Amino acid sequence: MKYVVYLSGEIHSDWREQIIQGCARKGLDIQFTSAITDHESSDAAGDGLGAETSSFWRDHKSAKVNAIRTQTAIKNCDLAVIRFGAKYKQWNAAFDAGYCAALGKPYITLHDEDLIHALKEVDGAAQSWATTPDQVIELLAYLAA
Amino acid sequence: MKYVVYLSGEIHSDWREQIIQGCARKGLDIQFTSAITDHESSDAAGDGLGAETSSFWRDHKSAKVNAIRTQTAIKNCDLAVIRFGAKYKQWNAAFDAGYCAALGKPYITLHDEDLIHALKEVDGAAQSWATTPDQVIELLAYLAA
Amino acid sequence: MKYVVYLSGEIHSDWREQIIQGCARKGLDIQFTSAITDHESSDAAGDGLGAETSSFWRDHKSAKVNAIRTQTAIKNCDLAVIRFGAKYKQWNAAFDAGYCAALGKPYITLHDEDLIHALKEVDGAAQSWATTPDQVIELLAYLAA
Amino acid sequence: MKYVVYLSGEIHSDWREQIIQGCARKGLDIQFTSAITDHESSDAAGDGLGAETSSFWRDHKSAKVNAIRTQTAIKNCDLAVIRFGAKYKQWNAAFDAGYCAALGKPYITLHDEDLIHALKEVDGAAQSWATTPDQVIELLAYLAA
Amino acid sequence: MKYVVYLSGEIHSDWREQIIQGCARKGLDIQFTSAITDHESSDAAGDGLGAETSSFWRDHKSAKVNAIRTQTAIKNCDLAVIRFGAKYKQWNAAFDAGYCAALGKPYITLHDEDLIHALKEVDGAAQSWATTPDQVIELLAYLAA
Amino acid sequence: MKYVVYLSGEIHSDWREQIIQGCARKGLDIQFTSAITDHESSDAAGDGLGAETSSFWRDHKSAKVNAIRTQTAIKNCDLAVIRFGAKYKQWNAAFDAGYCAALGKPYITLHDEDLIHALKEVDGAAQSWATTPDQVIELLAYLAA
Amino acid sequence: MKYVVYLSGEIHSDWREQIIQGCARKGLDIQFTSAITDHESSDAAGDGLGAETSSFWRDHKSAKVNAIRTQTAIKNCDLAVIRFGAKYKQWNAAFDAGYCAALGKPYITLHDEDLIHALKEVDGAAQSWATTPDQVIELLAYLAA
Amino acid sequence: MKYVVYLSGEIHSDWREQIIQGCARKGLDIQFTSAITDHESSDAAGDGLGAETSSFWRDHKSAKVNAIRTQTAIKNCDLAVIRFGAKYKQWNAAFDAGYCAALGKPYITLHDEDLIHALKEVDGAAQSWATTPDQVIELLAYLAA
Repeated sequence: MKYVVYLSGEIHSDWREQIIQGCARKGLDIQFTSAITDHESSDAAGDGLGAETSSFWRDHKSAKVNAIRTQTAIKNCDLAVIRFGAKYKQWNAAFDAGYCAALGKPYITLHDEDLIHALKEVDGAAQSWATTPDQVIELLAYLAA
Repeated sequence: MKYVVYLSGEIHSDWREQIIQGCARKGLDIQFTSAITDHESSDAAGDGLGAETSSFWRDHKSAKVNAIRTQTAIKNCDLAVIRFGAKYKQWNAAFDAGYCAALGKPYITLHDEDLIHALKEVDGAAQSWATTPDQVIELLAYLAA
Repeated sequence: MKYVVYLSGEIHSDWREQIIQGCARKGLDIQFTSAITDHESSDAAGDGLGAETSSFWRDHKSAKVNAIRTQTAIKNCDLAVIRFGAKYKQWNAAFDAGYCAALGKPYITLHDEDLIHALKEVDGAAQSWATTPDQVIELLAYLAA
Repeated sequence: MKYVVYLSGEIHSDWREQIIQGCARKGLDIQFTSAITDHESSDAAGDGLGAETSSFWRDHKSAKVNAIRTQTAIKNCDLAVIRFGAKYKQWNAAFDAGYCAALGKPYITLHDEDLIHALKEVDGAAQSWATTPDQVIELLAYLAA
Repeated sequence: MKYVVYLSGEIHSDWREQIIQGCARKGLDIQFTSAITDHESSDAAGDGLGAETSSFWRDHKSAKVNAIRTQTAIKNCDLAVIRFGAKYKQWNAAFDAGYCAALGKPYITLHDEDLIHALKEVDGAAQSWATTPDQVIELLAYLAA
Repeated sequence: MKYVVYLSGEIHSDWREQIIQGCARKGLDIQFTSAITDHESSDAAGDGLGAETSSFWRDHKSAKVNAIRTQTAIKNCDLAVIRFGAKYKQWNAAFDAGYCAALGKPYITLHDEDLIHALKEVDGAAQSWATTPDQVIELLAYLAA
Repeated sequence: MKYVVYLSGEIHSDWREQIIQGCARKGLDIQFTSAITDHESSDAAGDGLGAETSSFWRDHKSAKVNAIRTQTAIKNCDLAVIRFGAKYKQWNAAFDAGYCAALGKPYITLHDEDLIHALKEVDGAAQSWATTPDQVIELLAYLAA
Repeated sequence: MKYVVYLSGEIHSDWREQIIQGCARKGLDIQFTSAITDHESSDAAGDGLGAETSSFWRDHKSAKVNAIRTQTAIKNCDLAVIRFGAKYKQWNAAFDAGYCAALGKPYITLHDEDLIHALKEVDGAAQSWATTPDQVIELLAYLAA
């Protein structure tokens, strides 16, 4: 079976590449989508529409440009993998999880054991919790068989 | 006009009481709903269904019990106020924001200036950002006039 | 039959009052909702959340506060009456019409003959076109019989 | 990432061609849709179904024929760009914006600074505001990367 | 249990009154809604909005006024009873049936045996078929117990 | 622009073939769908699932088999053309119209002038009314340009 | 907080009464709905519409009458409790669970340990699993606090 | 006409293969989807995410992994065939039926006569009931003509 999988969350490690390459090696029929993951470009996404003096409005403009891509990706996916790293607030990842839940899009969380308590509501609405990209690859291989 | 307002997020300060009492003093026709905000009760929400040895499953059971209340409250509200405090990850608050966004429920965020950058995606999908409960009360008074 | 009717559009004449009072005189079981129709208050709706130096962002903040009320009103109504006056762009009225159409909420337009061509798309998705508040009152009296 | 982009609004300048050609030059994977933009054909869209003596009904018939195309295009798009020019009422463009908003379709407005106040509700529900076709092209290039 | 029941279709016999009175006698907690069933008023529903020379447009205006009431009633009901009599085309009754089916609103048809073949698609999407108002009353009494 | 068009209603004349061939001749990018239009096969659609002694249940079984096809076709179409002929009740055509209306699928009716009054509710929710297949072909050619 | 709770499944023990009375004793603001739980009446629900010689069609008619009540109850509830007993297939209970899941209505299962494996898909989409009516009462008391 | 058909239920006989091969032999344009039907793999679907000591949680994890596939398949299908065998509870098949019904996805049941009474609610919401794979093949051939 064919899936469109949206990869959401942490952008400071190579978990996306690991999953994409692992699935490619297994020849799975999966198409991956993602936000723009280059941190600087993402923060500057709205700059082309005119400079802002207030940091709130600069962030606001960029966030809304980026939301065009992420919300399109969520609406068009069958499944999301949402990664929480050790650092940063990563509220956008939790936001994506809530967005998926409300639309009935299944998602898998990917995070370490020490985040269990903080992520209990996000994990509570997830279909699965994985701790490594390899587990995600195995799971996708099973689902796409 | 009448509103049902869901109050989501931080449970360590009295912002909910301030808003509820401020609106009552003004005689606004607003009904407020909320998650169970007693931290210990909330963590133990699933304990009555049987003890768990794994902390993941204990959290999981409680989170899913609590989700019955929070998701009912979101579906039945006209508007949410979502509070992010200075401490903790508060991923459940960001999850609620995403859930609201996907259902087309308008929400107002309530947080300090130093969280602007971390909350840009959550603020990007919000209708308004307030920094004090008094601002929220004024805004609700305007809306309910 | 009972209706909730949302009154949208022009705020410079007393058409809302005429319709509300006309329906009250006939004893119809209709509840009316509306945006905040005081022009200055409406433009200043977001000012309490902090001053803005840019007129775009001041307008933006106020518009998004007002949208909480108008979109709640549209979602909760059975029917809308949308008034276009002789002056101003009134794009918000046409926006409300499109919003109603997409949600399957029936609406009646209220405007003079000289706007027929300019409003053809808005009238095309309407259930009826009236030219006077009295016609709207008669129509509501018929519907609520 | 791939997008279907609906181009709505003003038909008196070549902004559509600029955007379509700019995106083609960059090799973006974007499919564009649009209403019939020939003014005379559009006004006469319903004439083939029989002549009308009343200008209201002639406009009505044409508007409803055209709505088949525009509403299909909106439902099938990922994103809309909605252009407001200096002249005319352009209520159909605002109608399309409301229609997009209610369906959760993100849209970008394209208009000059002097329309900011008149378009505040339309901009309030938009993801971005651009003032030139080039800005739109840059934004689409970013989103489709 | 409480129901809102929409009564659709034939207006030339007293089947509505029989059902309403039969349910009242049994003290059932059911609220009934209906189109305007006075034939002349219904045909003239749009006349107050201006005279028409073409019979198509006169009918069109009235039909769209009446649709405000019938579609509101269908959206707000739990259940519909749709009556087909021996005479006339009654396409509006079949239209209501299709409208109910698409919205997932259950409906009961009420018609004689000789219409079985002609109504097979309408009955195919119905929850029940009754031949007399008394059967409908018994069925509602059972459902509302 | 590309369309999927569902052809519904009368099966005793060659209006479907006229439209399909007319559009083919013009090279339009339109895909047509339809119910099974062979009358006998359609009436016998459920016979393979076991014989019935009651005509109601024989019709019921066939109608529900056919509904799999028609409702799939409606859900997957962009637009429907619904034909009412001079003879027969054709309640299934009116049912399809109501089904389309509730799902927000635009439809065009195709019928003679003498059916105007009987079809006023069906025409009231339609986007256009045509009297000949040639008019439909012209209209589709315009829409698909 | 107020809830409407639908009680689905097994009809051979008094679990419904236990839950209703337990919640009443605690003064919870909960309204309960249920299918008709008298086995014989339920099997005969369609008999008033005419006798059937085939057991399939007798069952079919009754099932569709009963579905009017159960599907109305599910659509109008905030939460369901679905009970599986030791005996019988109880496919209707699992059907209700799937129906709830697809509509995003949260549900709690109530069954003994020995059904864990057989009910894994039903439990997988549930918010909680309880083994006794007392656990359900405690859980509802917590949720309605 | 083209269909995507989801095959749900019993995994202990070769009914899926019979249907798939029968349709292939007839050259029908049908794409089939299915859960993972290898019993052991299915029960172990979540094992790769970490071992569990409790059988409830082991089943729970696997069920939720499998639900990613089954719910994706249901959402993407036009039609389901749901098979109930003579043995086992098969609550997952009834769950899928309820899920289809709530989403408006038509389904056909496939089971022997002796299950009629136990499956009356599931059959009540089905479009057809078949007793052999050959009947299903004939029915699909008719629908796909």
